Amino acid sequence: MIIPSIRFQNYKNMNTDFILADFQRVRAQSLDACSGLCLEDYGLQAAVFASPPKWHLAHTSWFFETFILKPFSEGYQEFNPRFEVLFNSYYNGIGQQHPRAERGLLSRPELSEILAYRNHIDACMLSLLDQSAHPDREEIWTRCRLGLQHEQQHQELFYTDIKYSFSRNPLFPALHEPDSSDKSALASSNVGDIATLAYASFEGGLVSIGQDVDKEDAAGSVTGFSFDNERPAHKVYLEPFSFATRLVTNAEYLAFIEDGGYERPELWLADGWNWVQQRDIKAPLYWYERNGEAMEYTLYGLRRRLPALPVCHVSAYEADAYAAWAGARLPTEFEWETVARAVSEASGSSGAITLHPAALQPGQETQQAHGQDIGQLFGHCWQWTGSAYRPYPGYRKAEGAIGEYNGKFMCNQWVLRGSSCVTPVGHARSSYRNFFTPEDRWQFTGIRLARDI
Amino acid sequence: MIIPSIRFQNYKNMNTDFILADFQRVRAQSLDACSGLCLEDYGLQAAVFASPPKWHLAHTSWFFETFILKPFSEGYQEFNPRFEVLFNSYYNGIGQQHPRAERGLLSRPELSEILAYRNHIDACMLSLLDQSAHPDREEIWTRCRLGLQHEQQHQELFYTDIKYSFSRNPLFPALHEPDSSDKSALASSNVGDIATLAYASFEGGLVSIGQDVDKEDAAGSVTGFSFDNERPAHKVYLEPFSFATRLVTNAEYLAFIEDGGYERPELWLADGWNWVQQRDIKAPLYWYERNGEAMEYTLYGLRRRLPALPVCHVSAYEADAYAAWAGARLPTEFEWETVARAVSEASGSSGAITLHPAALQPGQETQQAHGQDIGQLFGHCWQWTGSAYRPYPGYRKAEGAIGEYNGKFMCNQWVLRGSSCVTPVGHARSSYRNFFTPEDRWQFTGIRLARDI
Amino acid sequence: MIIPSIRFQNYKNMNTDFILADFQRVRAQSLDACSGLCLEDYGLQAAVFASPPKWHLAHTSWFFETFILKPFSEGYQEFNPRFEVLFNSYYNGIGQQHPRAERGLLSRPELSEILAYRNHIDACMLSLLDQSAHPDREEIWTRCRLGLQHEQQHQELFYTDIKYSFSRNPLFPALHEPDSSDKSALASSNVGDIATLAYASFEGGLVSIGQDVDKEDAAGSVTGFSFDNERPAHKVYLEPFSFATRLVTNAEYLAFIEDGGYERPELWLADGWNWVQQRDIKAPLYWYERNGEAMEYTLYGLRRRLPALPVCHVSAYEADAYAAWAGARLPTEFEWETVARAVSEASGSSGAITLHPAALQPGQETQQAHGQDIGQLFGHCWQWTGSAYRPYPGYRKAEGAIGEYNGKFMCNQWVLRGSSCVTPVGHARSSYRNFFTPEDRWQFTGIRLARDI
Amino acid sequence: MIIPSIRFQNYKNMNTDFILADFQRVRAQSLDACSGLCLEDYGLQAAVFASPPKWHLAHTSWFFETFILKPFSEGYQEFNPRFEVLFNSYYNGIGQQHPRAERGLLSRPELSEILAYRNHIDACMLSLLDQSAHPDREEIWTRCRLGLQHEQQHQELFYTDIKYSFSRNPLFPALHEPDSSDKSALASSNVGDIATLAYASFEGGLVSIGQDVDKEDAAGSVTGFSFDNERPAHKVYLEPFSFATRLVTNAEYLAFIEDGGYERPELWLADGWNWVQQRDIKAPLYWYERNGEAMEYTLYGLRRRLPALPVCHVSAYEADAYAAWAGARLPTEFEWETVARAVSEASGSSGAITLHPAALQPGQETQQAHGQDIGQLFGHCWQWTGSAYRPYPGYRKAEGAIGEYNGKFMCNQWVLRGSSCVTPVGHARSSYRNFFTPEDRWQFTGIRLARDI
Repeated sequence: MIIPSIRFQNYKNMNTDFILADFQRVRAQSLDACSGLCLEDYGLQAAVFASPPKWHLAHTSWFFETFILKPFSEGYQEFNPRFEVLFNSYYNGIGQQHPRAERGLLSRPELSEILAYRNHIDACMLSLLDQSAHPDREEIWTRCRLGLQHEQQHQELFYTDIKYSFSRNPLFPALHEPDSSDKSALASSNVGDIATLAYASFEGGLVSIGQDVDKEDAAGSVTGFSFDNERPAHKVYLEPFSFATRLVTNAEYLAFIEDGGYERPELWLADGWNWVQQRDIKAPLYWYERNGEAMEYTLYGLRRRLPALPVCHVSAYEADAYAAWAGARLPTEFEWETVARAVSEASGSSGAITLHPAALQPGQETQQAHGQDIGQLFGHCWQWTGSAYRPYPGYRKAEGAIGEYNGKFMCNQWVLRGSSCVTPVGHARSSYRNFFTPEDRWQFTGIRLARDI
Repeated sequence: MIIPSIRFQNYKNMNTDFILADFQRVRAQSLDACSGLCLEDYGLQAAVFASPPKWHLAHTSWFFETFILKPFSEGYQEFNPRFEVLFNSYYNGIGQQHPRAERGLLSRPELSEILAYRNHIDACMLSLLDQSAHPDREEIWTRCRLGLQHEQQHQELFYTDIKYSFSRNPLFPALHEPDSSDKSALASSNVGDIATLAYASFEGGLVSIGQDVDKEDAAGSVTGFSFDNERPAHKVYLEPFSFATRLVTNAEYLAFIEDGGYERPELWLADGWNWVQQRDIKAPLYWYERNGEAMEYTLYGLRRRLPALPVCHVSAYEADAYAAWAGARLPTEFEWETVARAVSEASGSSGAITLHPAALQPGQETQQAHGQDIGQLFGHCWQWTGSAYRPYPGYRKAEGAIGEYNGKFMCNQWVLRGSSCVTPVGHARSSYRNFFTPEDRWQFTGIRLARDI
Repeated sequence: MIIPSIRFQNYKNMNTDFILADFQRVRAQSLDACSGLCLEDYGLQAAVFASPPKWHLAHTSWFFETFILKPFSEGYQEFNPRFEVLFNSYYNGIGQQHPRAERGLLSRPELSEILAYRNHIDACMLSLLDQSAHPDREEIWTRCRLGLQHEQQHQELFYTDIKYSFSRNPLFPALHEPDSSDKSALASSNVGDIATLAYASFEGGLVSIGQDVDKEDAAGSVTGFSFDNERPAHKVYLEPFSFATRLVTNAEYLAFIEDGGYERPELWLADGWNWVQQRDIKAPLYWYERNGEAMEYTLYGLRRRLPALPVCHVSAYEADAYAAWAGARLPTEFEWETVARAVSEASGSSGAITLHPAALQPGQETQQAHGQDIGQLFGHCWQWTGSAYRPYPGYRKAEGAIGEYNGKFMCNQWVLRGSSCVTPVGHARSSYRNFFTPEDRWQFTGIRLARDI
Repeated sequence: MIIPSIRFQNYKNMNTDFILADFQRVRAQSLDACSGLCLEDYGLQAAVFASPPKWHLAHTSWFFETFILKPFSEGYQEFNPRFEVLFNSYYNGIGQQHPRAERGLLSRPELSEILAYRNHIDACMLSLLDQSAHPDREEIWTRCRLGLQHEQQHQELFYTDIKYSFSRNPLFPALHEPDSSDKSALASSNVGDIATLAYASFEGGLVSIGQDVDKEDAAGSVTGFSFDNERPAHKVYLEPFSFATRLVTNAEYLAFIEDGGYERPELWLADGWNWVQQRDIKAPLYWYERNGEAMEYTLYGLRRRLPALPVCHVSAYEADAYAAWAGARLPTEFEWETVARAVSEASGSSGAITLHPAALQPGQETQQAHGQDIGQLFGHCWQWTGSAYRPYPGYRKAEGAIGEYNGKFMCNQWVLRGSSCVTPVGHARSSYRNFFTPEDRWQFTGIRLARDI
């Protein structure tokens, strides 16, 4: 029997093999991601926001234990009662949390114990999922699907967190050496090699945004997973707009810098200008000069900065200032979703992750939207939108502690759309709402431009 | 000839008397507001955000000097060249600024010199406005109108800033003793005296939001002033909603506190919960207990806290948590404007300012919107909406330094709608967008509830 | 009858006229010091350490009220019960204190009320001092003497605090214009005009340091006032040392700067180097450049910086680094006192205060110590010693709250010796121990060098 | 041939075997100390002051490389040029330093590489020390002796740093389980079991303090090692004093707490009181309550707090406040040294280190000083003195970067005398001056009382 790729379909009418396969595959990916680490890296935390690899491995297991095994698995025995607090991220409804800034101080429990914890959780989950007569089977499967999406989010965070932590080591460790396919992704070296930046036009009007909870289609299957923050589907009125056909490149961003971009307050939001002044910001997060050469720290180590690659690791402030300089603006999240819906779903998310975004070469990897080519929507950089992260009309968070997943963060954050080079395969979709505070730069964040018409 | 009340009408087809009258009246109000101060109060600044009265008097004059007299008044002589930096608030396009946190350190120039500065500006402005043949007459009048609106904003800030600064003095000074009309506003002492809180229903749909730049009507006159952040008029799609018929009271808010409101994280946004924890917040800003009695600091001094008055000086976090506790939510700014447009314009803003909001008594002061009574839209407390402060589609800021007025603040702030008891008469309107960061509490901020239908 | 100059003699065998005269004269000096202020200056506080003039006027009165009138004046009526907390500086034994950083927020009580408070205290004190049969007369007179010394300390702080607060105003106000005698003090303009820096030798050995409580001499009179931190007299063993004959000048200090003094860590204490790096220190506190000219902010305003004047407003870190650069070291407080005892007592303190230290001209104003000329011990700059401020052997603080006067500060502070140009006449003596933390620079602090032999 | 125990004798007239043996033994002890760690512990740094074990292992090797191998070993090849910056602690004269607060972020180089670094240094040092004809042989041996003392200091820091870092892990890891001798040290459980606290009297007078640089005695050998801060020997005059015969116990300190010690400002230095208030200090650093039982975190894990053990991990502020409460004071460092010289040298430092101080049982382990028993001078807790850490008269620091070893820290620190349970055997002596800032508590610091007579 052939197991399909991970797509997080609704499992209602499917047999148990599918969910078991998905569970095992996602769980295995978390360990695969760590293959480039030495044991001493597992506890590394160079900032409050950059959790150690060991913590991610434990917390994702904690999620299944807390929200599925404890409430639904009769007679379940906790692996270690201390873990309830140690690996609770931010769920006040569950109770106390080990301080976020001190996750890196947990040299104990050792990695070996965390791996034993994962094995324990895996065994218990597989057993529970296999109970075809469990009275809460539907809720268990729903939460399991959420737990797997949650684990995929932490897989992406694993990459961005270890990148940040490594970047604070003057030796600039590489997580991996590039293999041959990575090398090709990094090959484009100048802007001449890439597709011209153009603007595709969209007419706007009353559009549909977001998703409803899984609805069965005619065939009795359902359309896919969504987080609560993508719900419900609702109407938004858009003015006509145009949308850049690819992301902004390093070369283009360098022109902004060389034109005094970081010294001209008129280009910046007031908060952004304060941020630039107080932290003496002069370039994207991982840009360096070494012996007069332009370098960029990547998960492949410190490498020559290539002009044709998308600019990456910029804050919303920088994205907004760049757009002002370029005579454009950031798209709203509604414009972005409208464009993405007009092209084939989640394009660019096929294939494996890479450790750095790639250049868009002419004719390559674009989709048609109303007859217009749009590239790099998914799989390279998350794209700052100009939209503040607030609930959709009619938004309802879940009851209980699991309701803390998304809703409580809807303040002072900006929405990013798309996905990045390290987003797990199958995790991206047009309605996905990622969110960070506007000064955050350690995610793979890039710049998509838009304009009023 | 009768001079109309201050309405900031477009002056295009009108004679000079109108603008001269408006100018003189608004300028005089700034001095009137200070009548309760002693000389030693004029330099008081108890927080970065709470500018001294003397600074407000100087900066509002600086605005006319910088944006009108210097560019348009031939041969204009600066009153004092040092003032360009000293009284620049945040206009990077003009140049350096005296540090905001150190405005209170300017014991010199003395008040007498600031009053001379005001007289100098007044004389020069009156002379310039009177030049009927000036080639830039239209631009001068447009900027003058902006300068007067700007001065009115600082008149409101004068009250909120001195209230905050006085509140840090253990003697709790009163700006004024209440006169007889104030007393009546403060008279309602229990919730039984006031109108029942109900929810009026609105059907939503595609609505018009914001204002276009003044358009002449058939009679050649225009509709009124707006700031750039209210423009352009555009369409927004609203789901059906209901809207509370009055503001939340002290008594209702106290019930929230007594039900553990400040100790239940599930009611709060994550940022709000951090704010509560880190600052040990337990009540609205000016609530005190004295000898077991519930007190509230007001500009009339420390007074008994009356249950029927609107709760005031709450952050957006508190407003949002209260709404969650009450099974409601904050209205969006578009819902708020839609309701306000349905009732008579700027109702409640007639009459004089008072130093504290008043209770809504049964049958009093409400307006009909689609047959439903809505009270306290204007003239009591600014009302936190659930909308982040971002530009309207097609928003354009002005060219040059004057373009820093609004646009650069469109980040990490929330929109408030309505007006407060200390908003100058004639300054409020349905499309007005006030904005503060969600933790700000020193404005007269209150809570309006809404619900999905 | 002739009233002697203020010398704070022990009053035991003297008649009441003397203490009444001293009281009135010292109290009047506090008001005299304020003669250059405008009313808006009285509340100015530009740093935690720089109390407003109004606060000094109130606190010195509070001291008499708290430690004399309340315990010893039968039926005494407090002027205002709120003042107990408002004007308590740091006496935990008395109770709560208005926060030190918020003294500048007390625009109320107004100056007029503070002056009334002073008058009330004066009247009550004069009446109490005049009660020749009071059972606690000796204790009252002892405490009165302490209160007057305390008031003189605040007179000096008045000058240094207002200097600091004025210096944060870009207008650089002058407290006074220099009169003719000031002008002469400021006249020396180059190092050639002044006495050569030499080192006088002292043999050390077992010396006596400090003072015992007033002991009657043969004639039944006593030797003078001392604070508890100068007591008891005790022996200290000194190695032979040499002692610079005058203070370091601006010109000499400039040579240190020009030789890279602030960029060479080997010259600095580790804490000092951190301080230099973190605060980007490059010169003494009030040094400025204006249009390429070397300037110094003084209480006479911003003036040309004269090479021959003593360098002033340096931290202990700077003094220590300068000494290291000069191949010398700071004297210990015991060496300093030993030298001062060898010359005539409190020389240099005769005459009036000036608002800035003066140059030492050849042959002028020096004293002979063992045949060697020593200048500028008193009346110009406090002199950092290399001694940490710790209690003398056998030190006992007073019982009760008044015991908090000195002893609790004996930690992390360095001793300064001598007196400054703004130390009140009659306040200085050889055994006086002034103390500040090593980074403090707002006092008139200068550099005296010493060497091992 | 018998190799003597590590005593750091001057090696001038001795053969090479002795220094080689000392070198190997001390270097081996650094690795022995780590035997209780798992690999993930090696990078742990829970505070700026608590360096990771791996860093200590590297830095002690760096010291030999930097100050001996590079200048004196011809043709020496650096192990890794990046290490010059990575493992420089604070020597500005050598160059840049990896930030102290970020030592824990160095997951790379891995431990295996650090061990290879140690092996490389060991081999090169042994070879260099063996060159009997090296022209700088005496300087090499002198610096080697300093390097070994330096490494011993870091061995003690290893224990105190890992204790602090472990204490921030809620699992409270033990470095080791107690063996049988440790158990006996921890056995005393109540104050009745221990020697009564008495005060021994000393007459004071002119005493000799400190050491001169090694002087040959008649037999041509020398007296032992000293750091520059112990030099030169000089005279100090002491008043008569008495000295407590043992350290203060947990039970005695608990009585201070129960008498309101942490709530009575009159007992505290002003800085100490601020520290207590701002950090909400209520007990020594590692005291905890668990289920109503008094516990203490030790390197043997979280254990019951025994009344008879010396109180440990107190700041100088706490020590000073306790002394004030007990009607005593801290001894000066000169009093302490005078007492220690009167008993047999470095008593208590024989035998092995333990991971926690032990109780003083009646008759046990005391020395006679002028016929009086004095216990616990060495081998239990460092003892806060009342002396600020300042240079001795005639102090000279070494030339060059190695001169940064001690002198630059002589500011805002207090002297501690004696040694602790984790001080390496052979490292303690009567003239040893340890120093920390008064708020530091992570060393094994205890309280010795003294009194004026």
